[in-house]
Amino acid sequence: MCRTQEIKFSSHSTALNHQASAMANTKLGPVLKDELDIVIPTIRNLDFLEMWRPFFQPYHLIIVQDGDPSKTIRVPDGFDYELYNRMDINRILGPKASCISFKDSACRCFGYLISKKKYIFTIDDDCFVAKDPSGKEINALEQHIKNVLTPSTPFFFNTLYDPFREGADFVRGYPFTLREGVPTAVSHGLWLNIPDYDAPTQLVKPLERNTRYVNAVLTVPKGTLFPMCGMNLAFNRELIGPAMYFGLMGNGQPIGRYDDMWAGWCMKVICDHLGFGVKTGLPYIWHSKASNPFTNLKKEYKGIFWQEQIIPFFQTVTLPKHCDTVQKCYIELSKLVRENLSSVDEYFVKLADAMLTWIEAWNELNPSGEEATELSKVVSE
Amino acid sequence: MCRTQEIKFSSHSTALNHQASAMANTKLGPVLKDELDIVIPTIRNLDFLEMWRPFFQPYHLIIVQDGDPSKTIRVPDGFDYELYNRMDINRILGPKASCISFKDSACRCFGYLISKKKYIFTIDDDCFVAKDPSGKEINALEQHIKNVLTPSTPFFFNTLYDPFREGADFVRGYPFTLREGVPTAVSHGLWLNIPDYDAPTQLVKPLERNTRYVNAVLTVPKGTLFPMCGMNLAFNRELIGPAMYFGLMGNGQPIGRYDDMWAGWCMKVICDHLGFGVKTGLPYIWHSKASNPFTNLKKEYKGIFWQEQIIPFFQTVTLPKHCDTVQKCYIELSKLVRENLSSVDEYFVKLADAMLTWIEAWNELNPSGEEATELSKVVSE
Repeated sequence: MCRTQEIKFSSHSTALNHQASAMANTKLGPVLKDELDIVIPTIRNLDFLEMWRPFFQPYHLIIVQDGDPSKTIRVPDGFDYELYNRMDINRILGPKASCISFKDSACRCFGYLISKKKYIFTIDDDCFVAKDPSGKEINALEQHIKNVLTPSTPFFFNTLYDPFREGADFVRGYPFTLREGVPTAVSHGLWLNIPDYDAPTQLVKPLERNTRYVNAVLTVPKGTLFPMCGMNLAFNRELIGPAMYFGLMGNGQPIGRYDDMWAGWCMKVICDHLGFGVKTGLPYIWHSKASNPFTNLKKEYKGIFWQEQIIPFFQTVTLPKHCDTVQKCYIELSKLVRENLSSVDEYFVKLADAMLTWIEAWNELNPSGEEATELSKVVSE
Repeated sequence: MCRTQEIKFSSHSTALNHQASAMANTKLGPVLKDELDIVIPTIRNLDFLEMWRPFFQPYHLIIVQDGDPSKTIRVPDGFDYELYNRMDINRILGPKASCISFKDSACRCFGYLISKKKYIFTIDDDCFVAKDPSGKEINALEQHIKNVLTPSTPFFFNTLYDPFREGADFVRGYPFTLREGVPTAVSHGLWLNIPDYDAPTQLVKPLERNTRYVNAVLTVPKGTLFPMCGMNLAFNRELIGPAMYFGLMGNGQPIGRYDDMWAGWCMKVICDHLGFGVKTGLPYIWHSKASNPFTNLKKEYKGIFWQEQIIPFFQTVTLPKHCDTVQKCYIELSKLVRENLSSVDEYFVKLADAMLTWIEAWNELNPSGEEATELSKVVSE
């Protein structure tokens, strides 16, 4: 399966760079227009899209309406979208809808499930267009596309950051056999203005704003975990989609605001196992408003002490060799979660069950999903 | 042993930040003035120091003269320095002088050996003061000092980079038990203008210049190797000094331009074992002139294929628990080099011997060195 807009991974970074950059700017139209869905979880009218119109309008939106399904969400004119509320989710998934969270932005992963595209970009509705230090508006989506279309370098750290960006390369001492890199599964973008702090840090530093524009993209090294934020995130759904489950959060659950963290831990362990890369850094969005730290503390507090045990678990977990698809890895991981984290709290038994339900739902809605992510195919592309 | 200018590692990053930043700017005088030596390897007059005068003049310089010892190196007036040529090195080390390279910038490590200070900053004589994007001259030394005086975070990646910089912190999902960080052993700075490329990349991209100022400092995660460049480098000599051996390069050796790489691999493995941190990123210096790619290729070509076996060795090497000082780690590493790399080339037997000689020389010139780096002392400081 080879699509026209697909880039072959080549050892010649300059060629790749030029190719990606040309693709993002030529008259061929918006890059990956027919291969990328923008997923937005929301409970309100989507006026924030007005600011994104020049960048998002050519793309298809999947809006996941959280909370009261009888409420009408207004979407600005001219956008191409489909919208799912809780009743839609229940209708489409039947009993398997139990794996999709309610009253938590974790519900966004329903959008990943229902999409049929190769790439996903997901963004929160309180995120606006940021400006770079020259005052130019940042096309976050374009940067994410560059990130996912160029390889990652998880096996050795390049001190000049992403060697596939224009004007950069591998530095002296970088092994030549590692310069092809590996396919990029995830591109994690950052936030100017309101940083993504936990409730305790919000409480302690209510006025801190992120004003530092760091002009870098880098690969998170193999074996290193990081806190993945779901606010401004893109990924290759064909490569890693089934691992992007945002867990059981919010209504009826003992925890919230750990949906993206959970997905990040699971995804990173699986990417490391399958040889995919994860990038973080550019693009920035403008995060407009800090959420209420008291509400956040209530949602987070169990996660704050649970994570002290969960993270060591993910840091040491190893997946067996026979797990050669994302689905197989994820099912294995759910077993290991049940075995190793149920002593932390019985919630993790429920979560391990939900992880299996998620995979069943994924396979049902993406019947060729299992095949499509087979490594042999990825490699032969 | 607690010195007045020493910072206690604390879990409160803001306090630390303010302390470090206050230290760098108050009327107390230049920070670490009596605790830091600047080591410069050279074969020419040190006119480049004129540009660094506002920043370096308060500090003591150790100049290691490479090449013809009868040549006089001119040092601009007003600098406080000591200078060692090859005859001095032979006189001071006797037969152990064999471990110090000749006609290669690897000779700089003699300066680390002879210094009695806690911190070292080393810089090449073709490196000038760079400017930040606002046009302000960058005090590279001040930034290195900030880097080594604040903790590192090797166990988990912080997406907003160094959490100890002003205006930054740990993001949501960062484990609270890891927020104290660990002592920083090494600060690796970068280069604007001429990037640190190997000969093949220099040949392929003769006109590429690094113009991207990335406003970040970050910890190289535990378990991840990186190509350490010796051009613009600072370290805590008490913590990691004995591991900063720049190997056998240049005259009489089959290889050159791998001195800093060698030190970087050894140092990183030992830092990971002992729980010290390594930072890379800011500060930038202005690297003025690309060295001759043809000469470089001649020096490098063996390294270019050797590194394909050396790096996997360092990526998988583990040091036994009883190695609880840098010296013990380094002696163990020399054994492992002999066992595992002698099949690559007999050069590595000679190098393993030189590693032992280096440690003997270190202990001779730093009689309390073994004690001073004992972990128990580091921890109790």
